[in-house]
Amino acid sequence: MNSGLQVTRRLVLALSIAALAACAQITPVTDPLPSWNDGPTKSAIVQFVRTTTDPASRQFVPLAQRVATFDQDGTLWVEQPMYAQVAFALDRVKDVVKAQPALAGEAPFKAVVSGDRETMARFTEEDLLKIVAASQSGLTIEVFHEVVKTWATTSKHPKYGRPYTELVYAPMLEVMKYLRSNGYRTYIVTGGGQEFVRAFAETVYGVPPEQVMGTLLKVDYAVRDGKPTLTNAPALLFINDKAGKPVGINMMIGRRPQAAFGNSDGDQQMLEWTTAGAGARLGMLVLHDDAQREYAYGPAAGQSASRVGTFTQALYEEAKAKGWTVISIKDDWKRVFAFD
Amino acid sequence: MNSGLQVTRRLVLALSIAALAACAQITPVTDPLPSWNDGPTKSAIVQFVRTTTDPASRQFVPLAQRVATFDQDGTLWVEQPMYAQVAFALDRVKDVVKAQPALAGEAPFKAVVSGDRETMARFTEEDLLKIVAASQSGLTIEVFHEVVKTWATTSKHPKYGRPYTELVYAPMLEVMKYLRSNGYRTYIVTGGGQEFVRAFAETVYGVPPEQVMGTLLKVDYAVRDGKPTLTNAPALLFINDKAGKPVGINMMIGRRPQAAFGNSDGDQQMLEWTTAGAGARLGMLVLHDDAQREYAYGPAAGQSASRVGTFTQALYEEAKAKGWTVISIKDDWKRVFAFD
Repeated sequence: MNSGLQVTRRLVLALSIAALAACAQITPVTDPLPSWNDGPTKSAIVQFVRTTTDPASRQFVPLAQRVATFDQDGTLWVEQPMYAQVAFALDRVKDVVKAQPALAGEAPFKAVVSGDRETMARFTEEDLLKIVAASQSGLTIEVFHEVVKTWATTSKHPKYGRPYTELVYAPMLEVMKYLRSNGYRTYIVTGGGQEFVRAFAETVYGVPPEQVMGTLLKVDYAVRDGKPTLTNAPALLFINDKAGKPVGINMMIGRRPQAAFGNSDGDQQMLEWTTAGAGARLGMLVLHDDAQREYAYGPAAGQSASRVGTFTQALYEEAKAKGWTVISIKDDWKRVFAFD
Repeated sequence: MNSGLQVTRRLVLALSIAALAACAQITPVTDPLPSWNDGPTKSAIVQFVRTTTDPASRQFVPLAQRVATFDQDGTLWVEQPMYAQVAFALDRVKDVVKAQPALAGEAPFKAVVSGDRETMARFTEEDLLKIVAASQSGLTIEVFHEVVKTWATTSKHPKYGRPYTELVYAPMLEVMKYLRSNGYRTYIVTGGGQEFVRAFAETVYGVPPEQVMGTLLKVDYAVRDGKPTLTNAPALLFINDKAGKPVGINMMIGRRPQAAFGNSDGDQQMLEWTTAGAGARLGMLVLHDDAQREYAYGPAAGQSASRVGTFTQALYEEAKAKGWTVISIKDDWKRVFAFD
């Protein structure tokens, strides 16, 4: 064979392969879930992805319908001893009171300002909601994002001495990436504030703002000094928790997810709605049963009770009845955090 | 040259080109906007797309940020003599009253049932809102979509004798396709009901449900006979019109659009918010000035006044001051509908 021709042919072949490789989806030969121990939980995830993305499968799911939803607190990152957004809001109270001095003498702000830990320990959900709302109201969306970003990189978690944004579960990040590399869009569906989570979701989870559905404050639009602005108002529009989650999913996505991941009673309806759909559906709940590496709480499966991220025995029973997989941090996760 | 080798080489070359063509974005050599007359309006669209998608341009916009928003009524399809959703709701009143007979004697339903055209002509926005809400409340989202789909293909517009879904502006469909083929995601941002528009948005506009932001009714989640269901409730959650449009855009997308298209005072704030962003932004308003092929109303630019889709002279002046392009149906559109 003419060697010049051979070179040309090889070059053309190489180009052809390069072109195909550049646009084709490359099937990884390496384990997409290295932080997971082998076992039925890991297998359930891999099996779900294979069966819904193989065009020859009876349970094949077209690209447009590949939607997976993830709760945030306790599912993607640590929620103990208090939700990150509550920690953020408590840290912000000083600034809030500086801007609105009248609040200093009012409950629940008075207790925070005076460091009254006894009263703070008895804070109701409503008290916390007031503090959370005050922490963002009056700020434009852009400024609020900046405030959250600064806090997120400088806060220190009481147990780990690291910012919350490092307290993300490495195995769950792998699941998100694995799903995305198989054509799934990964949405965060959180009871937390939508703008709070958007401030870091892209950096921390690779989730863009249009894929974050959260609890909504009212937002005011106004032209100020000739500049159109969107400003958080001190009123709730929509609570994206419990029965609110399927409603929020419908509002934001308009499709029933194929897979949903949660960890508490707040996620029950999201998993119900998701797994009631036809075809292959995946419902998963993280059980925090590893006091050493993370936290242990439920009260499901004999864990101690918790006001934060409650996982009741009733939900545990429903999971068994409905075929949802309970993820045991202790047994299923080889490592919990990227820094482990 | 060995003819076998030649064939092989040609085959490999052909494969290479096919592979590249399959994944590369093909730049069309044909006019992407054939229903538009040449002129400054058409040029503004083409110039915007070129300048924001050319990597060498100083106003290049990364893929993730390529968002364009479109009002629906009067921007994508005919809104005269009444909004499609109002026509739909009026057509549904009989069924609604059958399901809830008590309504038959109550305003505003009584006037519709008895065919009292005088009273109907005096209907306020609130009356129409009541009828619209009643037309969907109590129905699950799935059933409501089916009801709308059936209506959409069987309704007859009084002027054209065709269903509203055929009364889509061909030039605007071309803009949507042109933008999408250049990496833009096209969102519908409508004062109409989100679920009403979702029922046909994918078929009619190629817009998937997660890219439809509209006025939101409250939705109830419940497990009925063991089946999780989402049902429209008879209460408004959020009005996606006027100052609500930038708020709705932030809620659903979390990004400022690069381009926004509207036709009435209800779109003013969406265009303000869009074009106040840095870099190349496109704001466009459709002016209905073609009584022969469509309708002529304003009162902007000397058109007659209209309660439906009001385009005031004040908005017209703002458009001039802000550099928004006013699209003249008469002058800029070679044809209005696909059936022209």
